[in-house]
Amino acid sequence: MVPETKIPAYVRDVKYYETDRMGIVHHSNYIRWFEEARIDYFGKVGTPYVKMEEEGFVAPVLSVECNFRSMTRFGDRVAIVLTLTECTGVRFGFSYRVIDCTTGALRASGKSEHCFIDGKGMPINFKKMGKKYFDLFSSLVGVETMFEP
Amino acid sequence: MVPETKIPAYVRDVKYYETDRMGIVHHSNYIRWFEEARIDYFGKVGTPYVKMEEEGFVAPVLSVECNFRSMTRFGDRVAIVLTLTECTGVRFGFSYRVIDCTTGALRASGKSEHCFIDGKGMPINFKKMGKKYFDLFSSLVGVETMFEP
Amino acid sequence: MVPETKIPAYVRDVKYYETDRMGIVHHSNYIRWFEEARIDYFGKVGTPYVKMEEEGFVAPVLSVECNFRSMTRFGDRVAIVLTLTECTGVRFGFSYRVIDCTTGALRASGKSEHCFIDGKGMPINFKKMGKKYFDLFSSLVGVETMFEP
Amino acid sequence: MVPETKIPAYVRDVKYYETDRMGIVHHSNYIRWFEEARIDYFGKVGTPYVKMEEEGFVAPVLSVECNFRSMTRFGDRVAIVLTLTECTGVRFGFSYRVIDCTTGALRASGKSEHCFIDGKGMPINFKKMGKKYFDLFSSLVGVETMFEP
Repeated sequence: MVPETKIPAYVRDVKYYETDRMGIVHHSNYIRWFEEARIDYFGKVGTPYVKMEEEGFVAPVLSVECNFRSMTRFGDRVAIVLTLTECTGVRFGFSYRVIDCTTGALRASGKSEHCFIDGKGMPINFKKMGKKYFDLFSSLVGVETMFEP
Repeated sequence: MVPETKIPAYVRDVKYYETDRMGIVHHSNYIRWFEEARIDYFGKVGTPYVKMEEEGFVAPVLSVECNFRSMTRFGDRVAIVLTLTECTGVRFGFSYRVIDCTTGALRASGKSEHCFIDGKGMPINFKKMGKKYFDLFSSLVGVETMFEP
Repeated sequence: MVPETKIPAYVRDVKYYETDRMGIVHHSNYIRWFEEARIDYFGKVGTPYVKMEEEGFVAPVLSVECNFRSMTRFGDRVAIVLTLTECTGVRFGFSYRVIDCTTGALRASGKSEHCFIDGKGMPINFKKMGKKYFDLFSSLVGVETMFEP
Repeated sequence: MVPETKIPAYVRDVKYYETDRMGIVHHSNYIRWFEEARIDYFGKVGTPYVKMEEEGFVAPVLSVECNFRSMTRFGDRVAIVLTLTECTGVRFGFSYRVIDCTTGALRASGKSEHCFIDGKGMPINFKKMGKKYFDLFSSLVGVETMFEP
């Protein structure tokens, strides 16, 4: 399934328990938001991650980074805009922008890299073993999800 | 193994990321501290929980409750004092008191109930299936871990 | 504002990071879901919690409890159905039921109690100091939010 | 205070609630471990972070990254070895290595960058405003904390 129209970005409200005593969202939660955005994305492009895992495709995180630009607070709604940046068959990557839904201000940007492993922890070449995923993901490289304030 | 001397209570520092925008430890973290204290306890009485799980004894939480008495903040060190309150073979329970290590003030008190299940999620009667655990835990009922400021 | 129609229950998907090595949602997260459901509720009845805090009404948790009935897993969508059970002017309480949106199965039930304090941590009698909240909440006591599978 | 002897690395056990349904520590928790290690470090070099905040020096995270090398599981004990890599007066940075205490295997490596802001969120040049911190931190640049299995 290759979507012809743009995929909407993942949107969510800040949770109270995500704030810390600085009165802002604790930085570690952005890493969790990236994951939420990835999983939302897999669902929106027709390959729910829970099904991928059931089929034996597990996608651990190889690396993650985040640059914090401005603070996010309780009461804010954010969009996590995402781009699948790379898909080589043994590795795939995403970039992220966290945007305040009200002001459009950039809150943070980041990246993550992943591979696929099987249930025993061995790397999978999904160009061979999971061609449907490889073909889909390859077609999506470079296309950012859409956020309109 | 039945310890002849008192078991020391579990002590830990508040983490920055455990605070919320009220400037205090978010209440949900006390539930995690109870778990930390249980796991610390299992280790101290000679039955590390990781080994119990490896043997097929998994102990999910059936219920948990916590009463918050006063606030805990970043910079505080707390002791989670614990008592194994019940052990019937199909169910066991703990009570907890969270104490500020500096002042001795009671921060919170709580309870939890657990059973044992096997790897397939079926309940285990550990009076029969895990007699060594049953005998040990039975011997420990009512004995509170020790905290001295 | 007293809603004439039923207030819809809070619905959310399980996050991957909420699961633990048992393959289920870690029990501490239900306590966070209760908070999410409260905050969603305050918004739906016209008194967003972020505004209440800005006005100086902070509502810490006095007690919380949860009974776990069946397991929730990644891939599940749950409704947290909520009832404001009590409102006395110095204290208010909620009860909760966590329901699997697909099967309607009860996953957990729970309760929480709260008071209002001001910015300095002193208790507020909101029958006097926050009459608009008291009147609203009093009118809502006993009315469960609505979930239809 | 400039320590003449090596500063011991921060050591901690994996918490059960830090694992996810892959059976490993969820990647977001390494970001929290980095914070724990920083706060432990500030305490060990004589400038507890809670006191720095009380004096009006708040150190938000500007960026963070982590490379995951091998998996960490419940039952493992890890050392987070840390180096203060940079201190310019407006910015300071750390690098981290997460090491399995039993095997010495590298679990992850990472970096973080920070600045100091005051209570109103304005950047502080701590070469001027917090010279004692600047002098201390400058003296510590490049010195890794010590872990011996």
